[in-house]
Amino acid sequence: MLYISKKSSVKGMFEGDSVVLGPSVIGEGSLIGVGVIVGYPSYKKVKELIVKGKAKLESYDEISEGSRIESNCIVRSGSIIYERTVLGKGVQTGHNVMIRENCVVGDGSIVGSHSVLDGNVKVGRNVSIQTGNYLPPGTVVGDGVFLGPFVVITNDRYPASRRLLGVEIEDNAVIGANSTLISGVKIGKNSVVAAGAVVTRDVEPGKVVAGVPARVIMSREEYEEKKGEYERKI
Amino acid sequence: MLYISKKSSVKGMFEGDSVVLGPSVIGEGSLIGVGVIVGYPSYKKVKELIVKGKAKLESYDEISEGSRIESNCIVRSGSIIYERTVLGKGVQTGHNVMIRENCVVGDGSIVGSHSVLDGNVKVGRNVSIQTGNYLPPGTVVGDGVFLGPFVVITNDRYPASRRLLGVEIEDNAVIGANSTLISGVKIGKNSVVAAGAVVTRDVEPGKVVAGVPARVIMSREEYEEKKGEYERKI
Amino acid sequence: MLYISKKSSVKGMFEGDSVVLGPSVIGEGSLIGVGVIVGYPSYKKVKELIVKGKAKLESYDEISEGSRIESNCIVRSGSIIYERTVLGKGVQTGHNVMIRENCVVGDGSIVGSHSVLDGNVKVGRNVSIQTGNYLPPGTVVGDGVFLGPFVVITNDRYPASRRLLGVEIEDNAVIGANSTLISGVKIGKNSVVAAGAVVTRDVEPGKVVAGVPARVIMSREEYEEKKGEYERKI
Repeated sequence: MLYISKKSSVKGMFEGDSVVLGPSVIGEGSLIGVGVIVGYPSYKKVKELIVKGKAKLESYDEISEGSRIESNCIVRSGSIIYERTVLGKGVQTGHNVMIRENCVVGDGSIVGSHSVLDGNVKVGRNVSIQTGNYLPPGTVVGDGVFLGPFVVITNDRYPASRRLLGVEIEDNAVIGANSTLISGVKIGKNSVVAAGAVVTRDVEPGKVVAGVPARVIMSREEYEEKKGEYERKI
Repeated sequence: MLYISKKSSVKGMFEGDSVVLGPSVIGEGSLIGVGVIVGYPSYKKVKELIVKGKAKLESYDEISEGSRIESNCIVRSGSIIYERTVLGKGVQTGHNVMIRENCVVGDGSIVGSHSVLDGNVKVGRNVSIQTGNYLPPGTVVGDGVFLGPFVVITNDRYPASRRLLGVEIEDNAVIGANSTLISGVKIGKNSVVAAGAVVTRDVEPGKVVAGVPARVIMSREEYEEKKGEYERKI
Repeated sequence: MLYISKKSSVKGMFEGDSVVLGPSVIGEGSLIGVGVIVGYPSYKKVKELIVKGKAKLESYDEISEGSRIESNCIVRSGSIIYERTVLGKGVQTGHNVMIRENCVVGDGSIVGSHSVLDGNVKVGRNVSIQTGNYLPPGTVVGDGVFLGPFVVITNDRYPASRRLLGVEIEDNAVIGANSTLISGVKIGKNSVVAAGAVVTRDVEPGKVVAGVPARVIMSREEYEEKKGEYERKI
């Protein structure tokens, strides 16, 4: 199915059939993969259309506020970008990524296959989000952060609570594979969370934490020394 | 691709192109997203058609027993609902959800994006299954249960065993993000499993467990007290 | 969308609309599901086409080196198989699987729904990869291995490092659900990794490890005894 809104501004290119809704912008040199949907309306709007019996792409197009995909992006096949979300210059997504409304992904960042940014998520520049990450509403990620595969972030410390609180990850932090970050924690600048850790408290800048629950095991300096030794073995 | 079986009964609406096979029922006020497949036949039947060189949608339509999507449901784009599965009134799925044969999802429940109900799974009413859950065959979930993102449930204690045993989660239990529930455990009524926990034994009703392996850390009453304090800080 | 390359050799069958690019081979008795893409070109090539403003299926078809799907395979709906990847005889994938370039999956193996083989992954024969696994470049899996749901494997011990090192899993090992295997570890023949474990060091052949970090808890012989007892309770 190919559906390109007349209200959209498309300077990029399409691999094959895709859907672009509302006044979405697709910048120069950007590639939209097969089966991608850009500018999907938020739930509230879809619900109103359902009540009227009119929830279909043509009606979505009328009410969508559009997404903004800047220049030189790649949005790979099967991904869904909701309205009011912005992908900065050179952003790449993997396949089957889902990014809901009011998200911002900064210039040069990547969002790995099957990852979900579940609305109201802010991601900085040059961030690497590997495969299968989950970032709930309220998550804030700084610049240069690395999130390994299948990092799970939460925004609800006592589910199901009426008080939701996002996780903040400061610049250049490294978050290990399959780790879990509990609602409200702050992951300090240059800190490292080991793979498989469950982070229940704030991590101070420059510290390395590991385990369940996560505890400090070394400093970032020690980590970088070990890394250097390790890399010299190539 | 739009393929709506002549044997189906559709009172709901379609966003765009979808596939509905066999005598599937889509209730009033229900919305079927782009690229959804409803009534997909079980493996055994597909295999028989492959042997005959006839595994294609038209043949699936002939042999599918259909799925039942009750009224006011939303099945979001890319989801696949196998035959003999029932979604109760007001059920919502996220995007790219996969629900295999013989599943029942009770009224008012939600199944988050990318979640998999892998056949023969029973989910009660008003259950919240967040993004990326895995529920294998034999899993039984009571009413009002909350499953955080990326909960992984197993049905095989000694893989690959010929004795598969499901997990049972009783009413109003809360299962934290990225936790793992081992085959055969019973998660008692009103109990809480902390995020990242690995549950290897039964959890008594009203207890809160955490860690690897999971151990009791407090009662649900204490948890609710802490939750109350936490929420008053808004 | 149906796009079958004139350069491809297709003896199998299609459920519905799919995309087959370049000199891909689809063996006798194999089934390609709805929305599957076979022979998707690697990133480097796509990038070159983007620069030329020509990144679309027709151009991909010209430059793709194709994938090889042997006889009696099933590639379920929504899956993407990159070029230069080989699926052996009787291989089955679940839905929405992503297998990037230069992967080999041996005869009789299965790759569960939503799993990602992220390029340069070698999987032996009769391997069972359950739902939601992540295998990064450099991963090598022997014959008869069982990987439970949501196993996360890494190839970067000190992210983001310029030294990537794959995990090797030897024959007949069992890897539990939601476990994490750290870059460079070797999982010995017939060993077992418990569900939820985080494996930071090599596991000797025939040992069973559990916990965070994983430690030896018993031998495979003891595990098999327990398994036998357990199965006799059916």
